[in-house]
Amino acid sequence: KEVAKLLQLKNLKLGGSEVSGKKKDTSFTLKTPKGTKDWCDKDVVLREHIFSTVTEIFKRHGGVTLDTPVFELKEILSGKYGEDSKLIYDLKDQGGELCSLRYDLTVPFARWLAMNPKVTSIKRFHIAKVYRRDQPAMTKGRMREFYQCDFDIAGNYDPMIPDSEALKVLVEALDALEVGNYTIKLNHRKILDGIFTVCGVPDDKIRTISSAVDKLDKLPWEDVRREMVVEKGLKEEVADKIKEYVLLKGDRSLLDKLEADSLLSSNSSAVAAFNDMRLLFDYLEAFGVLDRFSFDMSLARGLDYYTGIIYEAVTEASAPKIKSSAEKKKSADPEADRSNDDSIGVGSIAAGGRYDNLVGMFAAKKNAKIPCVGISLGLERIFSILRSKIPDEDIRANDVDVFVMAFGGGKEWTGFLKERMSVCKDLWANGIKAEFLYKVKPKPRQQFDAADKFDVPFAVILGQDEFAKGSVRIKQMGLKENSDEGQLVPREEMVSVLKKLLKYD
Amino acid sequence: KEVAKLLQLKNLKLGGSEVSGKKKDTSFTLKTPKGTKDWCDKDVVLREHIFSTVTEIFKRHGGVTLDTPVFELKEILSGKYGEDSKLIYDLKDQGGELCSLRYDLTVPFARWLAMNPKVTSIKRFHIAKVYRRDQPAMTKGRMREFYQCDFDIAGNYDPMIPDSEALKVLVEALDALEVGNYTIKLNHRKILDGIFTVCGVPDDKIRTISSAVDKLDKLPWEDVRREMVVEKGLKEEVADKIKEYVLLKGDRSLLDKLEADSLLSSNSSAVAAFNDMRLLFDYLEAFGVLDRFSFDMSLARGLDYYTGIIYEAVTEASAPKIKSSAEKKKSADPEADRSNDDSIGVGSIAAGGRYDNLVGMFAAKKNAKIPCVGISLGLERIFSILRSKIPDEDIRANDVDVFVMAFGGGKEWTGFLKERMSVCKDLWANGIKAEFLYKVKPKPRQQFDAADKFDVPFAVILGQDEFAKGSVRIKQMGLKENSDEGQLVPREEMVSVLKKLLKYD
Repeated sequence: KEVAKLLQLKNLKLGGSEVSGKKKDTSFTLKTPKGTKDWCDKDVVLREHIFSTVTEIFKRHGGVTLDTPVFELKEILSGKYGEDSKLIYDLKDQGGELCSLRYDLTVPFARWLAMNPKVTSIKRFHIAKVYRRDQPAMTKGRMREFYQCDFDIAGNYDPMIPDSEALKVLVEALDALEVGNYTIKLNHRKILDGIFTVCGVPDDKIRTISSAVDKLDKLPWEDVRREMVVEKGLKEEVADKIKEYVLLKGDRSLLDKLEADSLLSSNSSAVAAFNDMRLLFDYLEAFGVLDRFSFDMSLARGLDYYTGIIYEAVTEASAPKIKSSAEKKKSADPEADRSNDDSIGVGSIAAGGRYDNLVGMFAAKKNAKIPCVGISLGLERIFSILRSKIPDEDIRANDVDVFVMAFGGGKEWTGFLKERMSVCKDLWANGIKAEFLYKVKPKPRQQFDAADKFDVPFAVILGQDEFAKGSVRIKQMGLKENSDEGQLVPREEMVSVLKKLLKYD
Repeated sequence: KEVAKLLQLKNLKLGGSEVSGKKKDTSFTLKTPKGTKDWCDKDVVLREHIFSTVTEIFKRHGGVTLDTPVFELKEILSGKYGEDSKLIYDLKDQGGELCSLRYDLTVPFARWLAMNPKVTSIKRFHIAKVYRRDQPAMTKGRMREFYQCDFDIAGNYDPMIPDSEALKVLVEALDALEVGNYTIKLNHRKILDGIFTVCGVPDDKIRTISSAVDKLDKLPWEDVRREMVVEKGLKEEVADKIKEYVLLKGDRSLLDKLEADSLLSSNSSAVAAFNDMRLLFDYLEAFGVLDRFSFDMSLARGLDYYTGIIYEAVTEASAPKIKSSAEKKKSADPEADRSNDDSIGVGSIAAGGRYDNLVGMFAAKKNAKIPCVGISLGLERIFSILRSKIPDEDIRANDVDVFVMAFGGGKEWTGFLKERMSVCKDLWANGIKAEFLYKVKPKPRQQFDAADKFDVPFAVILGQDEFAKGSVRIKQMGLKENSDEGQLVPREEMVSVLKKLLKYD
């Protein structure tokens, strides 16, 4: 009995908000699936603001939309995500093809490019939900269903030019969203691979050691070293050599330092990457955004498909606290929500990199490689930062301009329902957002309350006598009670007066 | 061998566009899952136009967005869709909750209302994909993944006022989209149920007989009668009585006729519905849209949850041809695409109705009923009508305003890459959509071709000498070759000149 109660309590803490509901003979829990949520009210207004802000910037740089299905053939996704493939959601086999929900927007984009060989270059953006069966931490924006806002540039171009524009787009987006102080960590897979090679990491361990290094933003070096040596069987002296490199970070002067390193400059992969970085820094300077970047050797990125530069944007608010694994309380239940675990920050708010071989993995012809570079902004993480910054009263839950009301009384009083409908009809026909109360004979108080609920800025009042004489009263709302009687205008002038007040046209 | 070839051919005809791809040792088909497609290029521009048109109208009527997860707990969807429940996509059981992809946007909306008892009224819209494992007919907009654009009004109000506004919204949307001539068929579930009752249909057969009647837009009466009598065991004389009513259609005068019918006016359910219809016709008249409606006794709608008025918008282009079942070639393969089956029209382009009990099915408290009425526009069907009407050249695939070019030559010529970047930076900072070619030293022809590909209206040309002297050349594109040299303007005036040309601000 006690156990059942606990289980019930636990159940209530998971997933989105929920209410337990029992209905007749069937009993079920009224909730959204774990790790998912409904978007409504002011949250959705802020979300739309984020979407429209980034969409405008993506279009400003020539981006066009591509939309792909929410699920893909299972085989399209397999072998693309390394260790994280276990987090892919599959559809049930109901006969026909085996499908999985998309894990990101990048692999579907590459699949589309391979399927459309006539398209050899494109700047595409895609804002859509992706799905990962991960442990959720809802209030920190870690969800199982979440939005990515991707902008990618595909095509064969002179080196680092598209890379620099992708990063310029990222800076413009983060600036326009006003996420606060942020840094974009920048690294190059080929420098990192060069480091691992010259330090003596065997080729077949490079990706797994890279994954360990990627945890340096969450764990102290000692923990990462232990993972390399104990879990992954790296020699101690190799790990110690790696430390000398991966803790380095700085501005473009770090590039000079790395180039001067005799060991690293003997590695052809690293040398090629140095040239890339030199060009990139030049171009970022021409775009006026160089100061936003930190050249950071500890940035490795988990995904397998990156082949060139990689990057990750973090804000103070989003960076996780670094805690050793010993300090971390390990949750026994992998299904539990970890919103209250302060070792989890919001994480990076945007990330990306160059991936030159992904399209080739799908293409029928061997030479059908299309190099790509892209950025991905995490909506939920940006949202959780902005939601806590912006005062609630600064967000209007709807956009209505005018509430159409009727005032009157006495035996003859009809409530002017059809008259209100007809006035609304005229407003709508002129693009003015208007509502009226769905009552035949509404009281003035009810109508004011309905208008105030959404801070509607103007009322059009149909007075029993005034309207009969062909006039309506336009009143500004939100003023002190009785401080303004509004202005009486002939009905045929109502629209033009309102358009001026609302600053339309 | 012959069979394998046929199977391969068949496979190629299914689903979205596809290209077979073999890669190294793994072989797979490069395609989107059956019944799904990618949206790109001009299609996606037209689609966005449809979305923004309806969104503007929804907001004009006070609509707010609600977004729900793409999947719901399986038990939320069960028992809501009658015979169509078999078309629901389930997620694989990978441990944890059992989930299904949403089948429509209405049930998730009702679930949300039940979960948020503080919300007793709302006008919400939701534009999103829904999922049905149905037999696809891709070119006619019948997909397994498709968009619905829903607008619903929830709350306890005076009768038929929200109903009439929902229908006004539908008319505004179809008018604004310019779908061509359309009719909105209108009926009332309670009139229909009254008809069935007075004709002698047993209570437990009402829903299934209603489903048969709903096929009258695709089948002749004889076929529907056969279904009722042979398949569903209805008495012949009952079926013949039904015929006298369900073939009736007309304008509001049909209501007088029905009210004068002594049999029908003895049924209290029908009488209540007559009062609803009288109010509705009045209100639709006040909104100035009455002429768009056809009061049609054959409209029944498949879904179980409707309780009041129901409606369906059809255009000439979207109406299916009526063919008897004998004429129809039955496809042996239920997975086959039926795009070439001319007995399938695009179908209704929008539909909806009142559903007063759906929220109550989820709510914990018995009295927590919230009556709702709503409309749902089918994006793919509207898209397929508009796409065939609008000439390809009237749709621009991207929005870019300015292409920034460099012209020069000789030994000293650098290609002005950083200069082009810097000029773009200034344009972007002023909200002007601009691109440049990702080449260090591009040829004039290459730059013009890139600009022409997307009909970019203006070029900013950095001439080798002119730019060194502080000026750029602004040239209108798309004119006859050499007919215009453009205007040379000081660099610091470039933005203001372009804003004027582009009619910004």
